[in-house]
Amino acid sequence: MTGTTDTFGSNELLFNAFEQNCISLAYHSLWAHPESNRFDYLKPKFWIDLAKTLERGGFDTIFLADVVGVHDLYKGGYETAVELGMQTPGGDPSVLIPLMSSVTQHLGFVFTQSILQEPPFNFARRISTLDHITEGRVGWNIVTSHLASAARNLGWDDLPEHDTRYAMAAEYLAICGALWEDSWLAGAVLRDKKNFRYADPAKVRKINYEGKYYKVPGPHLSEPSPQRTPLLFQAGSSEAGRQYAATNAEGVFLDSSTPLGACGIIADVRQRAASVGRNPSDIRFFQGLTFVVGGSDEEAQKKNDSYVEYLRPEAFAAQLSSAVGGDVSVIDLETPLDQIKTNTMQGWLNSIRASAPNQQWTLAKVLLWRRNRQIVGSPERIADVLQEWKDAGIDGVNVSYVISPKSFEDFADGLAPELRKRGLLKEEYRPGTLRQKFFGQGDYLNDRHPLKQSANVTTL
Amino acid sequence: MTGTTDTFGSNELLFNAFEQNCISLAYHSLWAHPESNRFDYLKPKFWIDLAKTLERGGFDTIFLADVVGVHDLYKGGYETAVELGMQTPGGDPSVLIPLMSSVTQHLGFVFTQSILQEPPFNFARRISTLDHITEGRVGWNIVTSHLASAARNLGWDDLPEHDTRYAMAAEYLAICGALWEDSWLAGAVLRDKKNFRYADPAKVRKINYEGKYYKVPGPHLSEPSPQRTPLLFQAGSSEAGRQYAATNAEGVFLDSSTPLGACGIIADVRQRAASVGRNPSDIRFFQGLTFVVGGSDEEAQKKNDSYVEYLRPEAFAAQLSSAVGGDVSVIDLETPLDQIKTNTMQGWLNSIRASAPNQQWTLAKVLLWRRNRQIVGSPERIADVLQEWKDAGIDGVNVSYVISPKSFEDFADGLAPELRKRGLLKEEYRPGTLRQKFFGQGDYLNDRHPLKQSANVTTL
Repeated sequence: MTGTTDTFGSNELLFNAFEQNCISLAYHSLWAHPESNRFDYLKPKFWIDLAKTLERGGFDTIFLADVVGVHDLYKGGYETAVELGMQTPGGDPSVLIPLMSSVTQHLGFVFTQSILQEPPFNFARRISTLDHITEGRVGWNIVTSHLASAARNLGWDDLPEHDTRYAMAAEYLAICGALWEDSWLAGAVLRDKKNFRYADPAKVRKINYEGKYYKVPGPHLSEPSPQRTPLLFQAGSSEAGRQYAATNAEGVFLDSSTPLGACGIIADVRQRAASVGRNPSDIRFFQGLTFVVGGSDEEAQKKNDSYVEYLRPEAFAAQLSSAVGGDVSVIDLETPLDQIKTNTMQGWLNSIRASAPNQQWTLAKVLLWRRNRQIVGSPERIADVLQEWKDAGIDGVNVSYVISPKSFEDFADGLAPELRKRGLLKEEYRPGTLRQKFFGQGDYLNDRHPLKQSANVTTL
Repeated sequence: MTGTTDTFGSNELLFNAFEQNCISLAYHSLWAHPESNRFDYLKPKFWIDLAKTLERGGFDTIFLADVVGVHDLYKGGYETAVELGMQTPGGDPSVLIPLMSSVTQHLGFVFTQSILQEPPFNFARRISTLDHITEGRVGWNIVTSHLASAARNLGWDDLPEHDTRYAMAAEYLAICGALWEDSWLAGAVLRDKKNFRYADPAKVRKINYEGKYYKVPGPHLSEPSPQRTPLLFQAGSSEAGRQYAATNAEGVFLDSSTPLGACGIIADVRQRAASVGRNPSDIRFFQGLTFVVGGSDEEAQKKNDSYVEYLRPEAFAAQLSSAVGGDVSVIDLETPLDQIKTNTMQGWLNSIRASAPNQQWTLAKVLLWRRNRQIVGSPERIADVLQEWKDAGIDGVNVSYVISPKSFEDFADGLAPELRKRGLLKEEYRPGTLRQKFFGQGDYLNDRHPLKQSANVTTL
């Protein structure tokens, strides 16, 4: 089966590099591997070189995940996470973007920021500034935080309830959208030296937003950036998450165990998108996969064996504890997943179950689950498997590294030539902003998007 | 009289370039001048080139001012500010720093952020990330906002009272300081590949801050950056401002009208610093000055005449309205300054009066006041005047541009050689972090600083 919503009517996939400004993102403790120079993550050269590698490898985007708290549930504290460098220590993702954009022309930059981190007015300006300075290459992954540790450091007594977080997120996005789309009208910026008119104040409007959680009068401080609204990403495949993605997202990250599972989720979200007035093809789906590339399958397997040696299960257990909202060191790992109820990452747990519904999912299986999405082999074998995913309807791949930058160098030098031969990877970048590259239909949100339909704005 | 607290026992001055991520910072409407290419402020190349020019010109720092609202008091709205591009539109300052740091080795980056913009926990991490990625070249100018427009967009019904803002600022700084200085102890980061120990959790502590305005348990998310605490700047010469600077600041911006006025303020703040247990030389004072450089005095004067033509008094009136917290279009401009009482920039108004106490200050005089700090002439004449300021005891100059980058290019190419000849400008940069360059006594805050004396932290 070939997807009917191919990005550009071709066999091409989009590729995203999954990263975080930290020591250990997903393959925990691989920083200890002899081939890892991850300690350099604090140096500008690390990110500058990585950006160049990604552009050489034909990557469309780098995605910077973020965690604004510590994983402190496992064994009742943050010892394990800190000792193993598991997402702590870490830094602000947005700071890396100007470094990387200044040495690339096409690579896009998507980053995570939780609505709890900063008032929307301030965040909207930072996004606009980033979009200006990258010349239209910025995307935002909207999250609501899942760590109580984050919330408590940001002025809350505890993590707000799931529904409250989603209600806040809806307001937050509406405010940002109004600032980006509706405050500075087309033609507001005059740049008229002769008449000393930089802008036409009649076309710079307040947004006068008054919601349950936020009040923001505006106007937006930044003049319109190349994309106005950044490319909007979302992860999470819970019921609420799917509906949110169908309504708002332009890019969705999937964590499916099988092509068939991905196919089902994609069809469902596209259907939901259509039912809220969007086109099914208004959303690009990125499946999370990891490649271990070798000259031959045997070589790749040997390489992978050397990686596996360095994985530390305790780091995964600490991360899983945050996801389920409880200390998994005192929970029977054979507990069926459908018995876990939590205020944290219920959607993520649901999505794992949904991606392979016939499995008897337990916590123990979740701990091993990332391996399912790992493709180890020669460039030819990996390309074969990728074609299966492509045929199941994914638009792109969210490439998780084992060792960074090594895994991305292997992609660029070892895998990319074979992918190009098969038409799975572009020969050249398309011109234009990130949104234009993704959809080929202009720099701005299309008119079907709900942020283009808000109109609660007033003139001065 | 020669200052007794010379930066390095020499005739050298520090130089800071005063900038903002906007169209019009201080010499309003000069963007309309034929020699201005300020419209490029949205392009990365503008800032990259500027950073290179500044380093060529021997500048120690670039300071990025910020305004997180619109000037909307003048004539009851923001028409004037928006039409003339007066600090609106504008962008986030911190986004520019990685761009500029990646093409320079020594230039320092000081930026303004108000405590109202973002929770301290999140801000502290961004600063640490910036300090890492610039390899120890970041400074922070602490402000509390003076625009009601800013406060209302950031979740407040109105601008909090002056004293409340200062009380909040004290807590905010204490939290950031505890995160930077006390959370990750020396030796916490192990990077021990052999034993899979990235960090020693016993040396990563919570700060458990509970104040009136903020509660932040910690720990800090970033590992210690090269300076830990950024170089701390402060502007404002009110009574409260002086005491705050004497207690906390390592760099102070002055807006004095005369060398004698500066001398008085410097002596007072140094005295206050000593009385709270710091050394008088723990603070560097930067006087705001503007240079219009010509091959001869006549040439410079002619150049200045062409600049003056483009100044638009209405932009200054709009800015002054924000400073006094009222619409100056309906206030008699001959009102004596000591009759103006405001919740906004009282300190700034006081400092103008204090810098030339024998003047009969009126609003009309404030509108013209920047001219007093403008030095127009040949490199020799400017160097002569600078020597007077140096002899009055200033440590550095906060260089305000008329046209940027033109004014800074004129500095680097026209003025710097003469300043170097006289020993007023360094021949070469000193090595090390920004703090080390400023004081020559190490990368970290010295032990006399109050942030080094907080101890309200607990172990895990």
